[in-house]
Amino acid sequence: MAHDLRSTPVAITLMDLPMVLYRDRGGRAHALVDRCPHRNVPLSLGRVHADGTLECGYHGWRFNGSGRCTAVPALDADLGTAPSPRDATSRPVRELDGVVWIWGAAAGPPTREPFRLPALGDGATVGEVVFQRDIDCTLHAALENALDVPHTAFLHGGLFRKSGRGPRVEARRRDLPDGVEVRFLGEPAAFGPIRLPGDSTFDHWDRFFLPSIAQVEYRVGDALQIVNSILHLPLSATRTRAWFVLRFRSPLPAKALAPIVRARGKKVLEQDVGMLEAQTENIRRFGAERFTSTDLDLLGNAVKRLLRRAELTGDQANEDVPVEIGKAQVTLQL
Amino acid sequence: MAHDLRSTPVAITLMDLPMVLYRDRGGRAHALVDRCPHRNVPLSLGRVHADGTLECGYHGWRFNGSGRCTAVPALDADLGTAPSPRDATSRPVRELDGVVWIWGAAAGPPTREPFRLPALGDGATVGEVVFQRDIDCTLHAALENALDVPHTAFLHGGLFRKSGRGPRVEARRRDLPDGVEVRFLGEPAAFGPIRLPGDSTFDHWDRFFLPSIAQVEYRVGDALQIVNSILHLPLSATRTRAWFVLRFRSPLPAKALAPIVRARGKKVLEQDVGMLEAQTENIRRFGAERFTSTDLDLLGNAVKRLLRRAELTGDQANEDVPVEIGKAQVTLQL
Amino acid sequence: MAHDLRSTPVAITLMDLPMVLYRDRGGRAHALVDRCPHRNVPLSLGRVHADGTLECGYHGWRFNGSGRCTAVPALDADLGTAPSPRDATSRPVRELDGVVWIWGAAAGPPTREPFRLPALGDGATVGEVVFQRDIDCTLHAALENALDVPHTAFLHGGLFRKSGRGPRVEARRRDLPDGVEVRFLGEPAAFGPIRLPGDSTFDHWDRFFLPSIAQVEYRVGDALQIVNSILHLPLSATRTRAWFVLRFRSPLPAKALAPIVRARGKKVLEQDVGMLEAQTENIRRFGAERFTSTDLDLLGNAVKRLLRRAELTGDQANEDVPVEIGKAQVTLQL
Repeated sequence: MAHDLRSTPVAITLMDLPMVLYRDRGGRAHALVDRCPHRNVPLSLGRVHADGTLECGYHGWRFNGSGRCTAVPALDADLGTAPSPRDATSRPVRELDGVVWIWGAAAGPPTREPFRLPALGDGATVGEVVFQRDIDCTLHAALENALDVPHTAFLHGGLFRKSGRGPRVEARRRDLPDGVEVRFLGEPAAFGPIRLPGDSTFDHWDRFFLPSIAQVEYRVGDALQIVNSILHLPLSATRTRAWFVLRFRSPLPAKALAPIVRARGKKVLEQDVGMLEAQTENIRRFGAERFTSTDLDLLGNAVKRLLRRAELTGDQANEDVPVEIGKAQVTLQL
Repeated sequence: MAHDLRSTPVAITLMDLPMVLYRDRGGRAHALVDRCPHRNVPLSLGRVHADGTLECGYHGWRFNGSGRCTAVPALDADLGTAPSPRDATSRPVRELDGVVWIWGAAAGPPTREPFRLPALGDGATVGEVVFQRDIDCTLHAALENALDVPHTAFLHGGLFRKSGRGPRVEARRRDLPDGVEVRFLGEPAAFGPIRLPGDSTFDHWDRFFLPSIAQVEYRVGDALQIVNSILHLPLSATRTRAWFVLRFRSPLPAKALAPIVRARGKKVLEQDVGMLEAQTENIRRFGAERFTSTDLDLLGNAVKRLLRRAELTGDQANEDVPVEIGKAQVTLQL
Repeated sequence: MAHDLRSTPVAITLMDLPMVLYRDRGGRAHALVDRCPHRNVPLSLGRVHADGTLECGYHGWRFNGSGRCTAVPALDADLGTAPSPRDATSRPVRELDGVVWIWGAAAGPPTREPFRLPALGDGATVGEVVFQRDIDCTLHAALENALDVPHTAFLHGGLFRKSGRGPRVEARRRDLPDGVEVRFLGEPAAFGPIRLPGDSTFDHWDRFFLPSIAQVEYRVGDALQIVNSILHLPLSATRTRAWFVLRFRSPLPAKALAPIVRARGKKVLEQDVGMLEAQTENIRRFGAERFTSTDLDLLGNAVKRLLRRAELTGDQANEDVPVEIGKAQVTLQL
């Protein structure tokens, strides 16, 4: 998140490519490949120089936000302004809604604006909870888990939905620009053991947006709304950083609700992390993914197709077994 | 061992292949490949369901002892009884003499009965000691170590045989059905510093049985008998689980002798483990085995040949240097 | 160092090749490849036998300093004196000035005498400080770091040279037999914050000698001399052992100066180790070195060329980007 990036350089990896993020003196964020061209030490070990450049900690070479090498201490020569093998490599950066976005591809400026977080209005009844977690799993596994309904009755049994022969719920999938959405109709409104009065049902949407955003939204009439936007950064093919931005609106004061939302969110997350990391380790032990899907896997395979189209999956070779799941409308027995 | 397998699923690996063992409600043991066909999480993280199936902990899919998928929660469809990509993979299992045996090969039912532990009779003078140890070494190295006489004088010097210019002992090798045996003649009967009265000698046999059993037997006339049957499970090419089943018969009460047998057995074992793990690490550092044998290596190479015939060695490429050891009769100077 | 090698065998690696060093009863040092030919356990786990041979700890095979197998316990046969597959592999060893040198190549006896440490004279004003450090870096990176002037102003800022627009210093490079040297002219004599009185300047030489020695020498007239000879052992392609032999001569008592030299040397070393290990890890993350040099890199590339000529670099594939640095004379602005 943007507020985590201050004057100190921050090291991350993007699909194993080491990057360094820093802000210049004007407050603008920049991203360079985290390797000094001179002797290849991480630039993230350096510091932001008084002139706003990023200075390497080994020999003091300095680089501006475009990666241009602007100083080589002790060198008795003019560096000039032409591109040089001394320059570092930069990546485009955009800052929006408190999120810093880096473009992974070196070629050309971004052609698309970053994802916008949903606006739920103002006032004391609107709240936000944010937390971050690194998970040993693929980007796809994290996205599928975030958008998968059937596992909640099992893995989060009691905390969330209950397992068993419940009511039939309709699920309808449709394409979005750069994404896909499933809407659930007729789902009984309940939060674990707490069931809402009367026969009220959730309006419930699960959404995926390229490059790496999962979004789960619940509404009960006009009174209640909760939107969980999960932004993912694929640190490597099998390690993913997730930021959970939970925004909610209800008749209750947001300040009172926030700690409950946070505690419950983290509990569900830790159960998912345990399962995702066991899945990753097991796939590693078997050497490859070999999934079998059913009609219930409403979003996992659609997300995989979109990631592949955008060349964002690590391994193109892991194929699903050919159980066709073309249905855009499915009935779940919850 | 069979008594370690109760209602909770147990995870093991067989040459790096993850397996899960569990008992159904009728007490029968089953073995499945430890991967849920749906999203590849380990089935061993699940539990035995009330209907006797093994239930995955992620989405609750259930599998019977043949691997057939019998339930997919929330799926509004009949699964049918035909084989399906949703099925898990099973392996044949046999239980005999308190040992659970898994057949590693997928093809066909077992054509051979499992190894039988030796029966030494009943009564207060017959005892048993069992212990288990995982060792970082190949199956072959564990077997060879268990059946090798010359190292005992060195590695276990004092505890066992003493080194030096002792008496000549005859050793005779012969083939067994699915195995090989060496018999030693004229070995002075002694346990470390304790030497038996008179000129008594051991009857001593070292035996190997496919797939992975080493057996060492000592007798002194009719009074004393000790049989150490070591059952090995190759967890991976370089990690082996060993169960030591020590059975003994003597004029003394077995209850008094058992703690001594256990303590001595474990002490010898830990010395062997230290050497075997140093050997494994050194072979890893050098990239390959490169052994040189002499006439004293009576069983190691014979065992390797039997393992290769049965395709049970991990690496077919590691060849002995060509020191021929065809002799079936050898004199040792102990 | 020679005094570290006593009666107990010592294990080291030379570019990942495990070696064992030991002294026979006559005090002569020997080096064998650290693998018993019999079952491949490390000979370094054994001990020096009463007959001066190295005895393996598993089966008690014994080897003399040429690697010849002289005993196989329990074997009822004459080993003879001809070469045999039972023999271990030896490497030539020389001991000089308190340093044990091993020849890595198997072929032929050494054709060159080992490196001699410099003699600074006798008396209470001449001292020596020695310390040892293992560093996760290539041999080349350790050598270049030891002989690189520009980084000292940055990495050791305050401790050493100060950064900024200082005086111009001439640097002249010339070849040595099996080495290369750079001499600096006009460098102001200062030790961190302590500046010597008057306009006195250092005489300063940085030298490299094959196979793996870096040497830094400072003099101020006849009064002061300090020579740091750094002997390197490449444990693997990316792990290097360095012995720092600091010899100095000044008007002060050496006993008083030694603790200061040691403390300062270790502080500088730890800063260098931190940067070298970050460099190594970053090159590992990027998959290969990709250096860019300037005229200031006076010795790094010359050393790389000499190491390549002697086939002492681990990876021949890592090429510098083509910034030519042929200049033998360079001006630095310190």
